[in-house]
Amino acid sequence: MNFRQRLSSFIDHPSFGQFITGVIVINAVLLGLETSPGIMADFGGVIKTLDTLCLGIFIVEIALKLVAQGRRFFTNGWNLFDFIIVGIALVPGGQGLSVLRALRILRVLRVISVAPRLRRVVEGFITALPGMASVFLLMTIIFYIGAVIATKLFSQSFPAWFGDLGLSAYTLFQIMTLESWSMGIVRPVMKVYPYAWAFFVPFIMITTFAVVNLLVGLIVNSMQDAHQEEDHERTDAYRDEVISRLEAIEQRLAERSETKM
Amino acid sequence: MNFRQRLSSFIDHPSFGQFITGVIVINAVLLGLETSPGIMADFGGVIKTLDTLCLGIFIVEIALKLVAQGRRFFTNGWNLFDFIIVGIALVPGGQGLSVLRALRILRVLRVISVAPRLRRVVEGFITALPGMASVFLLMTIIFYIGAVIATKLFSQSFPAWFGDLGLSAYTLFQIMTLESWSMGIVRPVMKVYPYAWAFFVPFIMITTFAVVNLLVGLIVNSMQDAHQEEDHERTDAYRDEVISRLEAIEQRLAERSETKM
Amino acid sequence: MNFRQRLSSFIDHPSFGQFITGVIVINAVLLGLETSPGIMADFGGVIKTLDTLCLGIFIVEIALKLVAQGRRFFTNGWNLFDFIIVGIALVPGGQGLSVLRALRILRVLRVISVAPRLRRVVEGFITALPGMASVFLLMTIIFYIGAVIATKLFSQSFPAWFGDLGLSAYTLFQIMTLESWSMGIVRPVMKVYPYAWAFFVPFIMITTFAVVNLLVGLIVNSMQDAHQEEDHERTDAYRDEVISRLEAIEQRLAERSETKM
Amino acid sequence: MNFRQRLSSFIDHPSFGQFITGVIVINAVLLGLETSPGIMADFGGVIKTLDTLCLGIFIVEIALKLVAQGRRFFTNGWNLFDFIIVGIALVPGGQGLSVLRALRILRVLRVISVAPRLRRVVEGFITALPGMASVFLLMTIIFYIGAVIATKLFSQSFPAWFGDLGLSAYTLFQIMTLESWSMGIVRPVMKVYPYAWAFFVPFIMITTFAVVNLLVGLIVNSMQDAHQEEDHERTDAYRDEVISRLEAIEQRLAERSETKM
Repeated sequence: MNFRQRLSSFIDHPSFGQFITGVIVINAVLLGLETSPGIMADFGGVIKTLDTLCLGIFIVEIALKLVAQGRRFFTNGWNLFDFIIVGIALVPGGQGLSVLRALRILRVLRVISVAPRLRRVVEGFITALPGMASVFLLMTIIFYIGAVIATKLFSQSFPAWFGDLGLSAYTLFQIMTLESWSMGIVRPVMKVYPYAWAFFVPFIMITTFAVVNLLVGLIVNSMQDAHQEEDHERTDAYRDEVISRLEAIEQRLAERSETKM
Repeated sequence: MNFRQRLSSFIDHPSFGQFITGVIVINAVLLGLETSPGIMADFGGVIKTLDTLCLGIFIVEIALKLVAQGRRFFTNGWNLFDFIIVGIALVPGGQGLSVLRALRILRVLRVISVAPRLRRVVEGFITALPGMASVFLLMTIIFYIGAVIATKLFSQSFPAWFGDLGLSAYTLFQIMTLESWSMGIVRPVMKVYPYAWAFFVPFIMITTFAVVNLLVGLIVNSMQDAHQEEDHERTDAYRDEVISRLEAIEQRLAERSETKM
Repeated sequence: MNFRQRLSSFIDHPSFGQFITGVIVINAVLLGLETSPGIMADFGGVIKTLDTLCLGIFIVEIALKLVAQGRRFFTNGWNLFDFIIVGIALVPGGQGLSVLRALRILRVLRVISVAPRLRRVVEGFITALPGMASVFLLMTIIFYIGAVIATKLFSQSFPAWFGDLGLSAYTLFQIMTLESWSMGIVRPVMKVYPYAWAFFVPFIMITTFAVVNLLVGLIVNSMQDAHQEEDHERTDAYRDEVISRLEAIEQRLAERSETKM
Repeated sequence: MNFRQRLSSFIDHPSFGQFITGVIVINAVLLGLETSPGIMADFGGVIKTLDTLCLGIFIVEIALKLVAQGRRFFTNGWNLFDFIIVGIALVPGGQGLSVLRALRILRVLRVISVAPRLRRVVEGFITALPGMASVFLLMTIIFYIGAVIATKLFSQSFPAWFGDLGLSAYTLFQIMTLESWSMGIVRPVMKVYPYAWAFFVPFIMITTFAVVNLLVGLIVNSMQDAHQEEDHERTDAYRDEVISRLEAIEQRLAERSETKM
């Protein structure tokens, strides 16, 4: 057993995984405490030190994995995920980069990559995505068309909602979620353009119908998958047995006929 | 038949159950009337007396069950449920404990434990919960991450919505239910942080998608359960019959071959 | 063929049904025109006369059916439905009874009783109701408990929303539909009772979960119905054939054994 | 190979389709850029020229198809779709017709007719429509009745929401989507008509229930389609084999009996 193999068996040991999970949870609590100015005023130094310690452990963990697995490390999607999430924390969070500092909490997502049950849920989500690609592409086209029409028609009178393509797309997303679509947006617009409902009501119907079809598609797909696995094996086994028994009977009868002839 | 057995047969008698159900319904009406200051001014004394009487009946009922069933009483979840709900009413509802007094209405929930059909619905809900555990855990992680990011980024400018982790989690729950998410929260936030949509729109998409998957999972599970029970028994009986008949035929042919040889 | 039979064949004739459908549609248009003060100012007399004529035709139709079918008329739910709806129009719509006058439009619902496809949809809705009874009863209990608790806790400070059981139930229904639940109701309430979320957030979760389960139940039920009908007949026919053929083979083999013995 | 056939093979060539798809995408970007006044001020001339060029290419494409396919061109729904969408752009967009100019963006929809996967999604949507016809008709009737009742009862006090049938229908659509139904509409109405909830709450329940049934119907239909195709072929093949083998055995036994007799 060479060095790499010994390293691998060390990394794959359950205790090592549990230790890392523990560090992730402690780190999550630390990052949560950091949001409280009162606690930071009293224990800021300790928390920052412990946070740096957690980060150090993650870096060592990934370095060990890199050494143990070599290039194979990057063929696993979850490893890449860990690598990027830990990498974000190493980007120097200078002034103005408060967003990057806030993103350090994404490290908590690592708990998904270490907990097999959560991993399976997320993998289930991801496998559902390709089946939704066509409907998503269609939604993008509908949103692009809707945003261009809305910007052309309403940008002059309602620059805050439909001033450019981005604002229109955001407003249309809000309308698709049905949030304040009428009292907040369409009724005011109808005061200037009385026929605005002829654009918004069909938009709502089409996008809602598309979302419903997406949902229906998802349900039918998972159902088929579940149904297919369910008892096909037993059915196949039963059918094979019936066919082979029938063959045996036929053969026996055929042999007898031959012996008689 | 000793005392315990006689007590058990008394408690299990349908009339006893109907009597208790009646008392629960009367108690529910009394607790409803208690909310009206006008009625309480006129009949307050009668209502309080009757309410105490109902409570007394419940206490006697549970005492009888405890005596009849002994330790077994606590092995049934519904008994525990009754015990706790009646127990709440016995906590001294001093000043400031108006919440505990309001919780006395939870006694109405006892109607679930005495009505088998409602019991089955609630048991159905409860059996659906474990299948949702992973998605719930994932949602908790997403909410924790979202709350930390939102607090870090927006707590300074919007302390009422994102002042600490609790407020942020509440606001994110509101956003997940799509209530006033845009006109009420995100548009005001975008006036200060123009790129806030880059946090909130993906948050909405991810949480909605997770909820939809939860729903799909529930549907597929109940469907499989329903499907599995449905006519598997008949199918299994049929299959067993086919196989045994085929075996009989083969055996008969085999016997004949032997007698000839 | 006596008078009753001739009347029955007249009523059952497709042309008669089409004529009644036509009268219903014309009546619907007339009742729609009645809502416009401008049109009523110009053609009010004509419209009212035509409306009375339509009503007269309906009364004659129902009278004919009553004569033709006798007591059997009331055994059909749709006949009762027609009878009540036409009856509403005959109640004298004196002053203050503008609501009853508005309900005359319900006559349009008669189009459902004459169009078989719509009838089937509505019958589908009605057959789905019993399966939802338990969940509905549970929702009623939850709402009653919620209304009592909300009234007890919040009626003092928010009489407009939680002043009595009726107002509380209405507000809780609004909260269940997620309409303005947070910005409109819970955030203002939390300014007075900071822990109000501990009542409202679980209430939303429980009622939403119950509604989702209702939906899941509906889907599973219709699916099973659809699945059961689907190809069970063919499966049963196939299985019967296999069993009877196997029996024939066994019998033949048994006969031969006997003849030999 | 005559001229028509050579034209057909030119049009059906994958490169031609890819070229047209490219032109559609470029045209979509151009129409998007047109919404920005800044870009139009600098590059307005170039963009308009390129847009006209794209339109020219579409006209030539459709002309070629018309020549190649003759009358058959109009038997394909997607061809008609392309024809109308390109035709809209040729209508002179004079003053006041800014809506028609905005509709030019609908050309982007052509990307659906050239991309087979998107085409299939849209065709899936369209095949789902007939199954929804009855429920849609029912919803129209419910909305008509609701609009007449609401106009009769509330038009005097709330002309902006229920002034005529059109306004009432729009407001009821808003209420069906649950947008601000209570805080925005029903609570103000209840200040004048305290029993208004007796109209609106049942309206919400009925329309929501109808929408849910629509959804359930869609799911069950697609599921049955999916299920039917699934493995029926294999099942049928298996059953045919079992039956024919059983027949063969019976026949063999029958023949033997005859030879013996």
